[in-house]
Amino acid sequence: MSETLDMQGGNAPLLQQVKTMTPRQMEALAAHLRVTLLDAVRSNGGHLASNLGAVELILALHRVFDFPHDKLLFDVGHQSYAHKLLTGRDLSELRTAGGISGFPDPAESEYDAFIAGHSGNSIAAALGLCHARDLRGEGHKVVVVVGDASLGNGEALEAVFASEKKPKGLVVVLNDNGMAISKNQSALYRSVAKISAKQRYRNFNSFLGKTFKETSAFGRHLRKFKYTVKGWLNKNDFFERCGLKYIGPVNGHDLHELVGVLGNIRKLDTAVLLHAVTVKGKGYEAAEEDPARFHGVARNFGEGEHSFSLALGKLLCERAAQDESLVAVTAAMTDGVGLSAFAEQFPARLFDAGICEEYAVTMAAGMAKGGLSPVVCLYSTFLQRAFDQIVHDVCLQDLPVLFCVDRAGLVGSDGKTHQGMLDLPALRAVPNLRVFAPKDCAELADLFDYARRLRAPAVIRYPNGYAPNLGGTVPVGESLWETLREGAGIVVLACGARAVARAIEAAKLSGADCRVVNCRTVVPLDEELLGRLAGRTIVTFEEGYARGGFGSAVAEFYAERGIRADVRIVGAPVVPVPHATAAEQAQALGISARDLARILTELSHRA
Amino acid sequence: MSETLDMQGGNAPLLQQVKTMTPRQMEALAAHLRVTLLDAVRSNGGHLASNLGAVELILALHRVFDFPHDKLLFDVGHQSYAHKLLTGRDLSELRTAGGISGFPDPAESEYDAFIAGHSGNSIAAALGLCHARDLRGEGHKVVVVVGDASLGNGEALEAVFASEKKPKGLVVVLNDNGMAISKNQSALYRSVAKISAKQRYRNFNSFLGKTFKETSAFGRHLRKFKYTVKGWLNKNDFFERCGLKYIGPVNGHDLHELVGVLGNIRKLDTAVLLHAVTVKGKGYEAAEEDPARFHGVARNFGEGEHSFSLALGKLLCERAAQDESLVAVTAAMTDGVGLSAFAEQFPARLFDAGICEEYAVTMAAGMAKGGLSPVVCLYSTFLQRAFDQIVHDVCLQDLPVLFCVDRAGLVGSDGKTHQGMLDLPALRAVPNLRVFAPKDCAELADLFDYARRLRAPAVIRYPNGYAPNLGGTVPVGESLWETLREGAGIVVLACGARAVARAIEAAKLSGADCRVVNCRTVVPLDEELLGRLAGRTIVTFEEGYARGGFGSAVAEFYAERGIRADVRIVGAPVVPVPHATAAEQAQALGISARDLARILTELSHRA
Repeated sequence: MSETLDMQGGNAPLLQQVKTMTPRQMEALAAHLRVTLLDAVRSNGGHLASNLGAVELILALHRVFDFPHDKLLFDVGHQSYAHKLLTGRDLSELRTAGGISGFPDPAESEYDAFIAGHSGNSIAAALGLCHARDLRGEGHKVVVVVGDASLGNGEALEAVFASEKKPKGLVVVLNDNGMAISKNQSALYRSVAKISAKQRYRNFNSFLGKTFKETSAFGRHLRKFKYTVKGWLNKNDFFERCGLKYIGPVNGHDLHELVGVLGNIRKLDTAVLLHAVTVKGKGYEAAEEDPARFHGVARNFGEGEHSFSLALGKLLCERAAQDESLVAVTAAMTDGVGLSAFAEQFPARLFDAGICEEYAVTMAAGMAKGGLSPVVCLYSTFLQRAFDQIVHDVCLQDLPVLFCVDRAGLVGSDGKTHQGMLDLPALRAVPNLRVFAPKDCAELADLFDYARRLRAPAVIRYPNGYAPNLGGTVPVGESLWETLREGAGIVVLACGARAVARAIEAAKLSGADCRVVNCRTVVPLDEELLGRLAGRTIVTFEEGYARGGFGSAVAEFYAERGIRADVRIVGAPVVPVPHATAAEQAQALGISARDLARILTELSHRA
Repeated sequence: MSETLDMQGGNAPLLQQVKTMTPRQMEALAAHLRVTLLDAVRSNGGHLASNLGAVELILALHRVFDFPHDKLLFDVGHQSYAHKLLTGRDLSELRTAGGISGFPDPAESEYDAFIAGHSGNSIAAALGLCHARDLRGEGHKVVVVVGDASLGNGEALEAVFASEKKPKGLVVVLNDNGMAISKNQSALYRSVAKISAKQRYRNFNSFLGKTFKETSAFGRHLRKFKYTVKGWLNKNDFFERCGLKYIGPVNGHDLHELVGVLGNIRKLDTAVLLHAVTVKGKGYEAAEEDPARFHGVARNFGEGEHSFSLALGKLLCERAAQDESLVAVTAAMTDGVGLSAFAEQFPARLFDAGICEEYAVTMAAGMAKGGLSPVVCLYSTFLQRAFDQIVHDVCLQDLPVLFCVDRAGLVGSDGKTHQGMLDLPALRAVPNLRVFAPKDCAELADLFDYARRLRAPAVIRYPNGYAPNLGGTVPVGESLWETLREGAGIVVLACGARAVARAIEAAKLSGADCRVVNCRTVVPLDEELLGRLAGRTIVTFEEGYARGGFGSAVAEFYAERGIRADVRIVGAPVVPVPHATAAEQAQALGISARDLARILTELSHRA
């Protein structure tokens, strides 16, 4: 095995060995993969529990199928680390600049058949791949590994339901660990699968009883699972009606069973859904006991720092205590957006829609129409999945829904699929919508209250990570923008927490006599102040794409009025931004404090 | 009945009379509603077939429930005309400026509980309304009328599956006319419903046989329906697992049965799905025979004029004949985007995803990944439903998917839910995406070929309606933009077919010595030309929101480079744009040719 376990030594040898390994060798390899990915996540952060749970599935798939000739898709990609290891990728630099991405990416490896940062896309993509294969007369298999939570996403359901005739050679592996990122309240989980016959269930049940102690985490899980399985026994042929032959459930940690079943599936001509039951966090005790906590972990498993997420959670609890109409809505990111305490204190007023951003937003619109005061908490990258619902259901009806948008701007190690660079350009043009960006957590509270007093659609956007308090004294009701640093020369209009902090730093670094303004309202702009600034040299600064963002709004302001102003937009070029720290990303994009300082120095010499 | 049929005389009296009408009076009222809405559609265009099919359902709902105390939602709203008539709205000015909207709108009537221009939102909105009601301790019912095609939309499925416990007092009426806008290939249609017992089916079957002749359109429909029903008989308890008590199917044109069943449902405490079978186009022979053609009709049932849609369809057929890799993808708008001929000539290469824009776009991405050359044809307003898929699945992977975006800009009589005003701001900032806007149909072909040669993600956007040929001679490969009118004074940078046509007109009207440039590429801009124009007075002109659009891109160009240019942006203010003709809308927004001429005159006097 020592040779086999040389993970750094190119992919072909290891992948070839997997094809002929003995069962014991495969088990040893599984154990090795677990240790390796655990170390990688411990060093660099990333998704742990779901990756631990998918090790045997991935090994068995590589044993049976011939990737990359056959195509392997993940939904979502946070279960793909073992696949990355097997296909020769070094996880020691996982999620860091120049290292391996935390998600599958065809640009990284030909073994990644499709991008997979956002849930729900895999079956649609696989159907596209199958249609292309069939029209081109090719013959490979297309394999999708989809988690049970992802399957509840609207796009996944669209693809499942889309046609009662599915292309042949499509294999959907349902990696069913019985939970979404937080918890799975979905009817789908209890509805979609079936067991072909009672006999099958009995066999499996007896097999489970023999294999796992009821006191283990897996045992506890299985009790829940068995309960669920019983619900499926009444001939629910959900998947078969959708053109997928249902096979399962199988134990997703039994390599022998998996290899056997997948081998048979490979010979089938019809489209298949294989239902594999796995344990999230399998093989790492802490993760197995509390997989929700270990879904995604920061580097070194650090606890949350002083952040907007925590501040929002605290704020929501305070305001909810005062105002019974306040409800919180999210989409499978309760912990991530800071709602854990709210969930404990106000369980009846927290609505977690699962990975269903569209449903979450429209439900919130309905709640607002019905007299409640909903606060929708989503990451910027996932908010873009409900763009139409924001426009059509919330804003055209001018409903008082407040969006608290976390992870806006650069997100760091999650990389290009998770960047929050598009919310400003997209949302700025939506009728009736106000868009705010606080400079720090204190201002988040200020804007939160201000937005709710407006009784209108509003977005408050802020970045992830550590958020220092920047001071400042002017409540947003008194003036829209506030000057944080006086200066007679260039006026820096900075938008968003990181940009404001960097602008202050850049002003100091440059030594120029700059005025720094905290532009905390993007819609509306502080038109009164902009009018007064018309004769000055203005530099706009934001952590976002220069195209269509805040700086664009300032340039527009003058151009719509025919005022010939001296506006310099500083923002990021419109390119995909790969994983690195947010600071490294800012540097690479030319929007660090140093970059701004250089521009300020140049401009002040020019003047 | 004569009093009853005074539709213009306020709503309360008629709605009150519905509560106590005899069966014969109700039938007469149904007939009257049909005639009235037929006249309205004949005069002003709109949706015909679905409205004709929903008359009895709507009458029965108003008979049984107490709206607006109870809440009534439609999904989508194009079946709501009878509801509008019953609630006192005068359809004689349907879809025209100042008249009644073609879709439900709470701003129009308190009887419209939620906006409903885009499919799939109703159940999510209704759940939000129910949660609000329950948290506020209110007791009304929330009733949703949802078409079978809408139910296949991802957001609708998310809401159906979201929880196995649905709020009480929720009534979902599945208006099942057995077809989507074009045709329903969905597995859902054959999968979702069930009949509680064979007995029920037999009764219904026998009832059908007695009631309808097999030779009628309804009879033909029923043969198909019965086939489907048989498929449901094996205890598919789809809806019940999702927390909805299934009742049905009922004949959706039998007022007696509907009133009886709905009366019982009203007394139930649980959430219910009522499965009503209706005939699209019911009561109007031509529509009943060919409902697809009559789904939406232009004013006076006019045939399609010389339009981008027709030009695209022709172009696709030509290119598909030369290139086997070309496939077309749409989402339940095959006819609308001009694909009817393509569907006939290349049926195996047309992929209609149903009302599933997300699935359509990701499937296209999969096709591109698999070596095909997909062209995705959608309306602008529906493209925004797949914003995340465009970003995540197409553009981050830099896949050669070409989006042909119809109904971009002002859409006229469909009104505020259907405006194509957001694609430019939203798409302009997406990495790797090119965005084009042809001035006429000839240039559509030019840009189409140009975009496909790029082998990269691209959008070509164009408006609906009549598209005159504007001439011009410079292929896009030779230069990005082209000057259509020379002039030494102001430079008008016009973007999009209508804007270019109006700019030429405005230049003539103003008498100013204007140069008019056709800016057919929004991403990338013609940077070389912009560089040369830096010293000139520039007016940008577009049929879109001024915020984040084309003009914004021009202002950005100079502001990113620190060039102090004289740019005047002329575009629409960011407000919802209600139904009227597109010309009236342009006038109301200050972006008509006359408006531009006035600005040009002012500016040339200033200079």
